[in-house]
Amino acid sequence: MTSTVQEWHLTARPVGRPKPEDFRLVARELPAPAEGEVRVRNTFLSVDPYMRALMSTTQTGDLAYRLDRPMTGGAVGEVVESRAAGLSPGDLVLSALGWRTGAVAPAEHFTLLRRVNGVADSAFLGVLGMPGLSAYVGLTEIAGLRAGETVFVSGAAGAVGSLAGQIARLRGAKAVIGSAGSDAKVAYLTGALGFTSAFNYKAGPVHTQLANAAPDGIDVYFDNVGGDHLEAAIDALNRNGRVALCGAISGYHGTEPPSGPRNMVELVKKRLTLRGFEVIDHADLQPRFADEMGGWLADGQISFRETVEDGIDSAVTAFLGLMEGRNTGKMVVRL
Amino acid sequence: MTSTVQEWHLTARPVGRPKPEDFRLVARELPAPAEGEVRVRNTFLSVDPYMRALMSTTQTGDLAYRLDRPMTGGAVGEVVESRAAGLSPGDLVLSALGWRTGAVAPAEHFTLLRRVNGVADSAFLGVLGMPGLSAYVGLTEIAGLRAGETVFVSGAAGAVGSLAGQIARLRGAKAVIGSAGSDAKVAYLTGALGFTSAFNYKAGPVHTQLANAAPDGIDVYFDNVGGDHLEAAIDALNRNGRVALCGAISGYHGTEPPSGPRNMVELVKKRLTLRGFEVIDHADLQPRFADEMGGWLADGQISFRETVEDGIDSAVTAFLGLMEGRNTGKMVVRL
Repeated sequence: MTSTVQEWHLTARPVGRPKPEDFRLVARELPAPAEGEVRVRNTFLSVDPYMRALMSTTQTGDLAYRLDRPMTGGAVGEVVESRAAGLSPGDLVLSALGWRTGAVAPAEHFTLLRRVNGVADSAFLGVLGMPGLSAYVGLTEIAGLRAGETVFVSGAAGAVGSLAGQIARLRGAKAVIGSAGSDAKVAYLTGALGFTSAFNYKAGPVHTQLANAAPDGIDVYFDNVGGDHLEAAIDALNRNGRVALCGAISGYHGTEPPSGPRNMVELVKKRLTLRGFEVIDHADLQPRFADEMGGWLADGQISFRETVEDGIDSAVTAFLGLMEGRNTGKMVVRL
Repeated sequence: MTSTVQEWHLTARPVGRPKPEDFRLVARELPAPAEGEVRVRNTFLSVDPYMRALMSTTQTGDLAYRLDRPMTGGAVGEVVESRAAGLSPGDLVLSALGWRTGAVAPAEHFTLLRRVNGVADSAFLGVLGMPGLSAYVGLTEIAGLRAGETVFVSGAAGAVGSLAGQIARLRGAKAVIGSAGSDAKVAYLTGALGFTSAFNYKAGPVHTQLANAAPDGIDVYFDNVGGDHLEAAIDALNRNGRVALCGAISGYHGTEPPSGPRNMVELVKKRLTLRGFEVIDHADLQPRFADEMGGWLADGQISFRETVEDGIDSAVTAFLGLMEGRNTGKMVVRL
């Protein structure tokens, strides 16, 4: 039986900040599943900062979204029809076939999920998904956080940052400092999320605010934004400090390259390490992450929020809002 | 018996490039050695880029040279008089009591050296000393060079760079690319030192010249200069590339902070690691280094040059020349 889905296409490559006109919602008829394929109805779509990069060809090459084709992204869905062994109607699955209401595809595109008591399915796009694993990998593997250290997280109210700060606390950090773009987010960090302190980066120079928040310096910086945050963190880092670079929202829109940190000489003087990573390289840590994060969730030790937009129509709006920091925690689209 | 030495004092903290007037040569009478002390006559003094940093207080704190006191630095000397067990007249020793013709000090300030056949004593300030160990540590420990990789070394005709390039070759690098500040130095790199290719960074943009020299990219960058070299290297690095930051001559003189690399976002995209180091933290590798470097020297596999200036009078001139790149290989002062 054929079925109709709606899917978002990129129709023009954004220059600088993406505009609604760069996207188009298209209806498409899908064939019935062939042998080995399943039909899935998506229930939650993920919008993430990395998608901005995929909208340009310059820096992402083969990974870039193709024009007038369905865009891809994380999605949680339910199997509706199956001609594949191991997947049955009703199964909850994760795929990269987002930005659409459903898909027909070979079974290997889908990962079977085990529902967690008391946790919404959208968590597999956030706290139990790529953002959670990114936070976990960045802190533990990339930055090598040790108990007793002081940690600074930028973009700390975001999907990754909010988890990075809490993982730091649960892993025994002496202090966890966060930056965010509004006073309400700052209150969220020091309230529900248990950050030691936080500041609003729009309220004054990052350099001064970080220095005030960390009079004894920082040992680890989890970087979600780059730019002036990175320069300030390099100055604040103690000897043998480490930086995990997880993304650079502040550089995504630029048509001019951003200015770089002017204090790179500090890397030598203070024996600092800066290391960029993409979570996709660290899938081997997924089982350990799922165990540890699952335990924290079961014990109520991790707090997380989602910003939920409703309906396939809202996906682009949700993405543009994410780029402007209008989310608190993971931004998802509920279908 | 008292003795008279000549020693250099820093009399004014340089702003920007140091000037001869910032230094003064002073004669001083030393007491006879007390129990546990030795008197040493220096035969070779070291001048090194890191000394520029010690002339400022802003960035180096307690390590900074004090005004109107003898400056310190690497020196090879001969024991003239000893009241300490384990050291006898005629022994060759290494100390940090340079910038002077001799010293009286407790024996623990001196390391007994074993002369190497066919190698001048000054080698303990260069190929067998801190520059050699810096090159070795940076490539093997910090950058984790593996056989078959492509390496780029900046400041490659200098004391550290010339050894870094050769160690890379001896450790199985597929290609070793160097940059230097004159055509003569470039010829030296591709000739005597066996670099695969080299370019004169004053002859054109580093970015273009490096891209041309490394059409398949680089895997390791040994950074001696920072600035535009670092930005170019970040663009040239392949996925999972590593940078060992060994110093930043280009930033030492600046009264304005240098511009930083504008392409830090590449650290994430290409999963790059930048790591600063100071050789002083890696003394534990000295025995392994001495073995391996001693073997290469004995086999004639390492070529090195020194730029030798004569007499204590010339020490400041030698240092200023070093800052301007007038050396090829290790710059030393022979007394």
